[in-house]
Amino acid sequence: MSTHWTVYLSGEIHTDWREQIIEGAAAAGLDVTFTSPVTDHASSDDCGAEILGAEADCFWHDRKGAGINAIRTRTLIGRADVVVVRFGDKYRQWNAAFDAGCASALGKPIITLHDPALNHALKEVDAAAQATCEHPAQVVSILRYILTQA
Amino acid sequence: MSTHWTVYLSGEIHTDWREQIIEGAAAAGLDVTFTSPVTDHASSDDCGAEILGAEADCFWHDRKGAGINAIRTRTLIGRADVVVVRFGDKYRQWNAAFDAGCASALGKPIITLHDPALNHALKEVDAAAQATCEHPAQVVSILRYILTQA
Amino acid sequence: MSTHWTVYLSGEIHTDWREQIIEGAAAAGLDVTFTSPVTDHASSDDCGAEILGAEADCFWHDRKGAGINAIRTRTLIGRADVVVVRFGDKYRQWNAAFDAGCASALGKPIITLHDPALNHALKEVDAAAQATCEHPAQVVSILRYILTQA
Amino acid sequence: MSTHWTVYLSGEIHTDWREQIIEGAAAAGLDVTFTSPVTDHASSDDCGAEILGAEADCFWHDRKGAGINAIRTRTLIGRADVVVVRFGDKYRQWNAAFDAGCASALGKPIITLHDPALNHALKEVDAAAQATCEHPAQVVSILRYILTQA
Amino acid sequence: MSTHWTVYLSGEIHTDWREQIIEGAAAAGLDVTFTSPVTDHASSDDCGAEILGAEADCFWHDRKGAGINAIRTRTLIGRADVVVVRFGDKYRQWNAAFDAGCASALGKPIITLHDPALNHALKEVDAAAQATCEHPAQVVSILRYILTQA
Amino acid sequence: MSTHWTVYLSGEIHTDWREQIIEGAAAAGLDVTFTSPVTDHASSDDCGAEILGAEADCFWHDRKGAGINAIRTRTLIGRADVVVVRFGDKYRQWNAAFDAGCASALGKPIITLHDPALNHALKEVDAAAQATCEHPAQVVSILRYILTQA
Amino acid sequence: MSTHWTVYLSGEIHTDWREQIIEGAAAAGLDVTFTSPVTDHASSDDCGAEILGAEADCFWHDRKGAGINAIRTRTLIGRADVVVVRFGDKYRQWNAAFDAGCASALGKPIITLHDPALNHALKEVDAAAQATCEHPAQVVSILRYILTQA
Amino acid sequence: MSTHWTVYLSGEIHTDWREQIIEGAAAAGLDVTFTSPVTDHASSDDCGAEILGAEADCFWHDRKGAGINAIRTRTLIGRADVVVVRFGDKYRQWNAAFDAGCASALGKPIITLHDPALNHALKEVDAAAQATCEHPAQVVSILRYILTQA
Repeated sequence: MSTHWTVYLSGEIHTDWREQIIEGAAAAGLDVTFTSPVTDHASSDDCGAEILGAEADCFWHDRKGAGINAIRTRTLIGRADVVVVRFGDKYRQWNAAFDAGCASALGKPIITLHDPALNHALKEVDAAAQATCEHPAQVVSILRYILTQA
Repeated sequence: MSTHWTVYLSGEIHTDWREQIIEGAAAAGLDVTFTSPVTDHASSDDCGAEILGAEADCFWHDRKGAGINAIRTRTLIGRADVVVVRFGDKYRQWNAAFDAGCASALGKPIITLHDPALNHALKEVDAAAQATCEHPAQVVSILRYILTQA
Repeated sequence: MSTHWTVYLSGEIHTDWREQIIEGAAAAGLDVTFTSPVTDHASSDDCGAEILGAEADCFWHDRKGAGINAIRTRTLIGRADVVVVRFGDKYRQWNAAFDAGCASALGKPIITLHDPALNHALKEVDAAAQATCEHPAQVVSILRYILTQA
Repeated sequence: MSTHWTVYLSGEIHTDWREQIIEGAAAAGLDVTFTSPVTDHASSDDCGAEILGAEADCFWHDRKGAGINAIRTRTLIGRADVVVVRFGDKYRQWNAAFDAGCASALGKPIITLHDPALNHALKEVDAAAQATCEHPAQVVSILRYILTQA
Repeated sequence: MSTHWTVYLSGEIHTDWREQIIEGAAAAGLDVTFTSPVTDHASSDDCGAEILGAEADCFWHDRKGAGINAIRTRTLIGRADVVVVRFGDKYRQWNAAFDAGCASALGKPIITLHDPALNHALKEVDAAAQATCEHPAQVVSILRYILTQA
Repeated sequence: MSTHWTVYLSGEIHTDWREQIIEGAAAAGLDVTFTSPVTDHASSDDCGAEILGAEADCFWHDRKGAGINAIRTRTLIGRADVVVVRFGDKYRQWNAAFDAGCASALGKPIITLHDPALNHALKEVDAAAQATCEHPAQVVSILRYILTQA
Repeated sequence: MSTHWTVYLSGEIHTDWREQIIEGAAAAGLDVTFTSPVTDHASSDDCGAEILGAEADCFWHDRKGAGINAIRTRTLIGRADVVVVRFGDKYRQWNAAFDAGCASALGKPIITLHDPALNHALKEVDAAAQATCEHPAQVVSILRYILTQA
Repeated sequence: MSTHWTVYLSGEIHTDWREQIIEGAAAAGLDVTFTSPVTDHASSDDCGAEILGAEADCFWHDRKGAGINAIRTRTLIGRADVVVVRFGDKYRQWNAAFDAGCASALGKPIITLHDPALNHALKEVDAAAQATCEHPAQVVSILRYILTQA
C-alpha cells in the first residue's frame, strides 16, 4: 500500500518542530514530501520590499511581502494531502489559524500541534482538525500509522 | 441597481462594533442582512455541554461546543456575500483568523477591521482582504458605496 | 439575525423521531423547512415498478425504485443547510450512512441521532458529524441555539 | 492505451477479498495501485488512544481513532479512480456505506461487492454504483476489461 | 414537505410531450416550474442571423444561432433540479444527448423518455439516468411521487 | 416559461449603452435585473482613499479603490446568469477583458458588444463569448429571444 | 515548452480514424497519450453480461454493459486535456454527443470531427467545440500546433 | 523543500521578456517548467485558416484561430501554479487581461509585469495579483525566493 504523501507544515517558526517531524519521518522511512512557508523571519518580512522596492509606509511594506509569501503558502497548501498547523506560546500567529481555515474550506485533513494550555483558545481550530497533538513525535506517529499500517 | 446583500460579521465579541455597523447600515437604508456567530460568550462556550451533556474533560467540553457553533458559522460564511473580520486587542482570536481563511478559500470578499497597531501581526490576513478598516463606520461606508453608488 | 434554514432528516423510518423534531421546532417558532426521503416503506420500495412497470427480477425491481428515490434524496440533501441522520436499532440502514457520506463530501454539517449503544459501530460517521444526539429534543435544542441565540 | 489506475478497496476487513483482487490483478498484469483503510481491526480501533493518549470515555476513545483513520480514508478515496465497496454478512459496516456516499458525491465510479442476499438492504448503494459483483474475481474481470480491452 | 422544483425539458420538439407533462403536473397540483429550450424550430435555427446579421456560410449561420440558444439552454440546465431528456424517432437529436451529458457531469438527476425501440442505441444515456420512461404520464407520476409522497 | 434573469453589464462607462439596454428590456417587459460596476468615474477611482484614508503613492491610492470595487464586481459577476462586456473605442479597458476572463472561467455565458473595428483585437474574448453584438439593441433582442420565445 | 498532453478519442468505432490520429501524432513526434472507449463493438455490448451474469431482458443486459463502460469513459474523459469527438454517417451515436456534453460541462476543450454534411445536425455540439475538423489529419495538425509551435 | 513549479507566461509577444525570465530561472537553477501561448504572431493569427480552411470573413478567420489557441492557453493556465501576465506599451492586449481574469477566477496566484506608466489603467488587474513587477528580473527573484528560501 505504498503511496507518496505531501504534508504542509504551517505555523510557528521559532522552534525546531519542523526538523523534529522531518527527521522523525526520515528515520521511519516514510515516503513523505514536507513543504512549509519561508521560515526565515527576516526574509519573510522583507521579501516584498527587497524584490519589488522599498515602501515608506509599513502597511504597504508588509503587503508586498505578504503577497509574495501567499504565492508560496496558498500553492503548497493546495497541493498538500495533510496540513499540520503548529501554534506556539508566543506571538499571535494569526497566519497559522488563517492557513487552517483555508485548509478546512479546501477539505484538507488538518493536524493541530500545540500545548494543552492553548486548548480553549484553539477550540474552533481543533474542532476542524482530525487530530490534535502535543508533541512533534505524535505527528510522526500519525504519519507512520497512516502510511505504513496494513 | 438594487439587490440584496448578506454580510457575515466574524470575530471579536466584547465591544459593540457589530451594533455600530448594523445601525449604520440601517440609518443608510441599505438592503443588507447581517449574520454573525453566537456572541454571548458563556452560551458559545457551554452550548455543547448544555445540550448534549456534561464532559469531565475540558478538551471535550470545548469540542462539543465548537462543533455546534461550527454548524452556524460555516453555514453562514458559506451564504455570505461579504465577510467582515474584526480583531480586537484582547484574546488571541484564532477563530477570527480561521474564519478569514475559510472565507478566502471559498472566494468570498473579506473586509478586515482592526487597530493599525495590529497591522504587522495581521499582514497575511490583510493581504487576503479587499479592504482594511480601522473604524466600523468605514465598513458602513464601503457597504453604502457598493450597494448604492450609481 | 433571522434567516431561514433547511434541514434534511435522513434515516430510520419506523419511529416518530421526525415528527418530534418538526413539532419541537414549530413549538419553538423556528424558521426551518424540514425535508426528508419518502418515509412510507411500501411506497419507497415499490415506486419504481408501479410507475415504470413490473420487473421479474428483484434486483431490478429494487433498482427502479432506488433510482426514483435518489432523485428526491440527492436533490434535497444538496439543498439542505444541515443533514440530520438517524440510526435506529433495527435494520442495517446503509442508506442512512450513505446519505451521511454524501453530506460529508458536499461539506454539509451533519447531526447524528442514535442510541449510545451504537456509538462504536458508528464511530466513523460520528467523527464526520458536528454533533451526536441521543434524543430528538436535543436536535431541536441545537437548531434553536443556532437559529435564535444572539 | 496503457494508463495507470488507482483503486480504493473499502469495507469488510474479516475475509481475504482484498488479497484475491490484488493477486488477481497482479496475475493479469494490470497496472493498478490498490489502496485501502487500515485493515488490522485492533490497530484501527486503538490508534487514537495509542498515539494521542488514553481516554476514559469510549466515545472519545473512538473519536480519536476515527479522526486519524479519516485522514487516510478520505485522502485515498479522493485520489482513487474507482472505489470498490465490500459488504460482508457480519457487522453493520456503516463506514463502508459512508465511504460509498463520499465516493458518489465526489463523482467517483463505484463497484459494490456483496452476496445477493444483501441486495434489498443495499439497493440505494447499488443504484449509485456502476457495477455490482458477487465475487472478487468479477471485480478483477472488470478491471482487466477496463484497462486492457482494445 | 412542500418545496418548489425546477424541471428542464430537453430534446424532441415535434410532438406535444412537453404539454402533456406540464398539463399533467398542473392537474396534479405540483409546485414545479418547467423550463425548456426554444421549441419553435425556425426561430431556433435562425435567431442568430436574424439578430446578429445574415451569414453567407451555413456553418456560421448555424454557429450564431447555436451560440444564442446555448445561453438559454446551459443556464436553464444549470438551474434545474431535474432534467428530462426526450428522444423521438425522427432526427438525430444530438443536442438532446449533449444536454444529457452536461446534466450528468453537473450531477443533475436525469429522466429519459423514449420508445423502447431506442433502448439499445440509448444505453449509455439511460445508464446515466435515474429513470427511463416510455410515456409522458410516467414522468408526471415520478414528479408527483417525488414532490408529494409522505 | 417565465423565469427571472440577472444580467451584469461590464465595461465602458462613457456612453449610454447600459441605459439603452435597460430601457429596451423594460420596454419589452423582460423580467431581468441588471447589475453593473460603479459607473461614476471619479467615485470609482477615489472610493478607496475617500473611505479608508489618503495615500501619498498613486499605486496604493489605486489599490485601495480597486479592492473596494472588486467586492462589488466579483460578487455581482458571480451572481449573474449572463455577462455583457462592452468595449468602447477609448481607453484600454483591461478591466472589461479581465471581467470577461472571470466570467468565462466561472462558466457564465458572455455577450460581447463592440464596434467591428475592434474585432481582431478582441478575437480571443469574442471566441469565449456566445454572441458578439455591434449595437445595444441586439443585446436586448437576444435577451427577449432567450426569455420569451416559446 | 515541452509538456505532455492526454487526448481522449470519443465516438465512432467503425472506421480507422483513431489509428490515423495516433499514427499521425507519432510520426510528428508528439508527446501525447491517447485514450478511448472500448472500440470492440461486441465486447462493449456484452461485457456486463459476460462478467456479471446474463440477463433475460435486453434493457438490463445493456445496462450492465453500459455501467462498466462508463467506469472507463467517465474516468478517461475526466483525465483528458482535450476530447476529440468523432461522428460518422452511420448509427445515431448518442454516446458521442453525451461524451461531448460531459466534456463541455467539465470545461474540457473539444474538437469535433465529422463530414460537413452533418454540420446542421451537430450545430449545438460544434458551438461548444473549440475546433471542427473534417479529416483526422486536421486533428493531428491542431495537436502539433498546440504542442510544438513556439 | 524542493518541489517542481509550473509558471505560465501570458501577454505581450514583441519583446524578449519571456527569454529573460526563462534564462534567469535557469541560471538560478530553479526547478520550473515555463509554458506560454504561441508567441509567433503570424502563426497565432492564421493557425485556424491554415489548418481548418480559409474564411472569406475576417471575423470567422479570427474565430477559427482563437478557438485553436484557446485549447492551448486555457489548458496551460489550468495546469499552472503561477500565472505571470505581461502588459507592454503597444497594442490593447485584451487577451492578457482576459487570461488574468481566468487565472483569478480559478484561484491561481498572479504576477503582473508592466511599466509603472500603466499602473492606473491596470489597477483592477494589479489588485487581483499577488505581486506587480516592473522588470523580468524581479519575476525571477520572486520565483527564486518562493522555490528556494528556507
